Amino acid sequence: MTMQAPTTGPLADFLVSARWEDVPQDVRHAAKRSILNVFGTALGGSRDAAVAGSLSVLDRFSGPRDASVIGRAEKLDMLGAAFVNAASGNVFDFDDTHHPTIIHPSAPVSPPLFALAESRPISGASLLHAFILGVEVECRLGNAVSPWHYRRGWHITSTCGVVGAAAAVAKVLAFDRERTVWALGNAAAQSSGLIETLGTMAKSVGVGAAARGGLLAALFAEAGVAGPAEPISGPRGFTSVMGDAATTDAIVKGLGETWEIMANTHKPYPCGVVLFPVIDACLELGAQNPGLTPDAIASIKVEGHSLLRERTDRPSVSTGREAQVSAQHSVAVVLIQGLAGVAQYEDACVNSPDILALRKKVQVSDRPGTAVEAAHVTITLADGRTLSASVQQGRGTPKRPMSDTDIETKVRELTRYGCPGLDPRPLIDAIWSLDRNEDAGSIMRLAVA
Amino acid sequence: MTMQAPTTGPLADFLVSARWEDVPQDVRHAAKRSILNVFGTALGGSRDAAVAGSLSVLDRFSGPRDASVIGRAEKLDMLGAAFVNAASGNVFDFDDTHHPTIIHPSAPVSPPLFALAESRPISGASLLHAFILGVEVECRLGNAVSPWHYRRGWHITSTCGVVGAAAAVAKVLAFDRERTVWALGNAAAQSSGLIETLGTMAKSVGVGAAARGGLLAALFAEAGVAGPAEPISGPRGFTSVMGDAATTDAIVKGLGETWEIMANTHKPYPCGVVLFPVIDACLELGAQNPGLTPDAIASIKVEGHSLLRERTDRPSVSTGREAQVSAQHSVAVVLIQGLAGVAQYEDACVNSPDILALRKKVQVSDRPGTAVEAAHVTITLADGRTLSASVQQGRGTPKRPMSDTDIETKVRELTRYGCPGLDPRPLIDAIWSLDRNEDAGSIMRLAVA
Repeated sequence: MTMQAPTTGPLADFLVSARWEDVPQDVRHAAKRSILNVFGTALGGSRDAAVAGSLSVLDRFSGPRDASVIGRAEKLDMLGAAFVNAASGNVFDFDDTHHPTIIHPSAPVSPPLFALAESRPISGASLLHAFILGVEVECRLGNAVSPWHYRRGWHITSTCGVVGAAAAVAKVLAFDRERTVWALGNAAAQSSGLIETLGTMAKSVGVGAAARGGLLAALFAEAGVAGPAEPISGPRGFTSVMGDAATTDAIVKGLGETWEIMANTHKPYPCGVVLFPVIDACLELGAQNPGLTPDAIASIKVEGHSLLRERTDRPSVSTGREAQVSAQHSVAVVLIQGLAGVAQYEDACVNSPDILALRKKVQVSDRPGTAVEAAHVTITLADGRTLSASVQQGRGTPKRPMSDTDIETKVRELTRYGCPGLDPRPLIDAIWSLDRNEDAGSIMRLAVA
Repeated sequence: MTMQAPTTGPLADFLVSARWEDVPQDVRHAAKRSILNVFGTALGGSRDAAVAGSLSVLDRFSGPRDASVIGRAEKLDMLGAAFVNAASGNVFDFDDTHHPTIIHPSAPVSPPLFALAESRPISGASLLHAFILGVEVECRLGNAVSPWHYRRGWHITSTCGVVGAAAAVAKVLAFDRERTVWALGNAAAQSSGLIETLGTMAKSVGVGAAARGGLLAALFAEAGVAGPAEPISGPRGFTSVMGDAATTDAIVKGLGETWEIMANTHKPYPCGVVLFPVIDACLELGAQNPGLTPDAIASIKVEGHSLLRERTDRPSVSTGREAQVSAQHSVAVVLIQGLAGVAQYEDACVNSPDILALRKKVQVSDRPGTAVEAAHVTITLADGRTLSASVQQGRGTPKRPMSDTDIETKVRELTRYGCPGLDPRPLIDAIWSLDRNEDAGSIMRLAVA
């Protein structure tokens, strides 16, 4: 037991008093990018087995079906929709990443807000503001317990996400201080999620439960279900139990001055982040050599930081999940298909003969002095010539964020993959103009099958 | 990260292969006692604010209303009913206690089974068997992570309860090994509950979520939502993350040979266990001196183990919750009212003038050599005479368990308190004969307002 400075009260005060007018433009824009990205990943993930399976169960227990399921035709009650939309948003781990904590912030926080907005009037600005604040609480909790928390085995997206979701809902429902504290406590009581579940559908149970549980926590508080005064940093509260020497200062310092969502990044490729510069280099080589065929390639050398080799030198992989951390597969598929999207990491693609053949020609080795964000790819052709590309900073990393257009492209590709009947253009436009929309819930009609 | 011996597979094998015929009679009877007791505490707790508040929210989101809410007229879908019935069963902390871990085993495990049994045919024997096995898994997990887990700040009833509930449902639905492992994994992904919430309604959010989450975990598994191979003791699984040097042997050793439910105890009084012998002594003094009035009492001396003084020497208390750990209040109320039930620990009772006056006469002190299970109470009368009673072993402790009749009396009192319109006799009879009932769900009709 460690005595810690109070954090729940300061967080609640911040949530209650925060004003939309005080949120800087770049923060607002970052929030739209995050929401757009997570709608995209949810559209892409909407047919996944974990999503379909959990939806089939929650469908049987749905109350009033006033909330949409992204990428699908079914409707659910808002608790069920929050669960399923969080699960689909995160199922490929292709959603956003808060770099300091590796939380995927949007999947637990965004779906409860949109589900609520379908059954009561919530303006786009209110929703964006609540989303920003929910992500703020979520990521500050994550900062406080990192890096011990994740290393210990906590799936930080779920454990912090449930509290962030509750904070967001408390804001959008304009709770007073007392009910905000209760919402945070009812959420902390449900904070869960084990790293052991990663790579299985049970991960999505944790993430879905975080979104649903955060919404429920706030609705319980609204109904008078009271919690403790200091659920976050009391002697047996969140940071004491789920952290180790947690820096509660990280929770309260600079609230309203710095914004965690500015540290949020968006993945261009659904694979391990160390592979991003490798893929960038291969895309460049493909673009510069349009006639390049696998037959013409004698060998391919991938060079980089030792971490690149340690984590991704995997010549023999047979599932999409393994392929997400295989340099050999990533290089082969990008050179042959010119893409690195979700389809390129499906089991069928991983086992297609042409890709199998090409990846045998790929070798991974260290090049001393190369930063972890960089990579070099050299193709030696059958005729002896060499082609090479070097990338200093992969796309989607903090120093080289995806452009708005990149994110739009990603959303279009994910929509084509997961919900091919849908034209994503109106959805994309609606999210960019969300702060001027009086009815945030109307967005959901643009995101269903 | 610690490498641990596998436990999930062995647990699943045990659950799949366990046969009702192999369950000893005393184990079956202990299960009926536990179920009877938790129906009683749920009836008593059914009007509590945490129960009413969470019910009011879950009611808005209920799907098919085929499950009963104990002590009330409302019906909910089975997930909602599992939540509310677990919350009411545990809300007063008057439910059963697994002595080695202080888990309240029945509240998370029993409600999902009865909720299921209202919408599909489940025999009483099947339900009892699943209940026994669910409690077995729940308490073995608790044994493995104790005492570190609770001390760290985990509300062990919730954290282990969700897995026990999933195990019970997996058994009653006759899952194969694979789906049983998935159910345990989907439950572990939702394992939560903080000690910081104790003493507030948020505790009930944790306990309710455990029951609901366990049921949902199993239904997800039934629908194909798969989890990891070793959610319980994998490198980032339950015992590694939520335990410290967890003894996974405690999970698998002697499965089917020893039965954790035999270590389950039932509280005769809704207060701290160290007060039980004090209350017994006061009840004895009251019974032996029927004309005793507060005016006739000059002073009262309570003596016992130093823990008794340290935990319960609280002359000034103003709420029922504080009074649950006050020797002064307990002595005064028992001598005046002749009872120590839920009503005796309500705020109004705690602040009634006659009890306030008498508790000022009570002093608590150590008597070296007294066991923690014992207590001595000495009343000095105004006329100088003394009356004294010594209790070596309080009722409801492992060595002096409540009799079946004691539990029946407790259930009747709790019913009168929480659901006064209900005659509990048919319910009591139905639980004693549960193993001969072809329709376990029919019990629920006897437990509603």
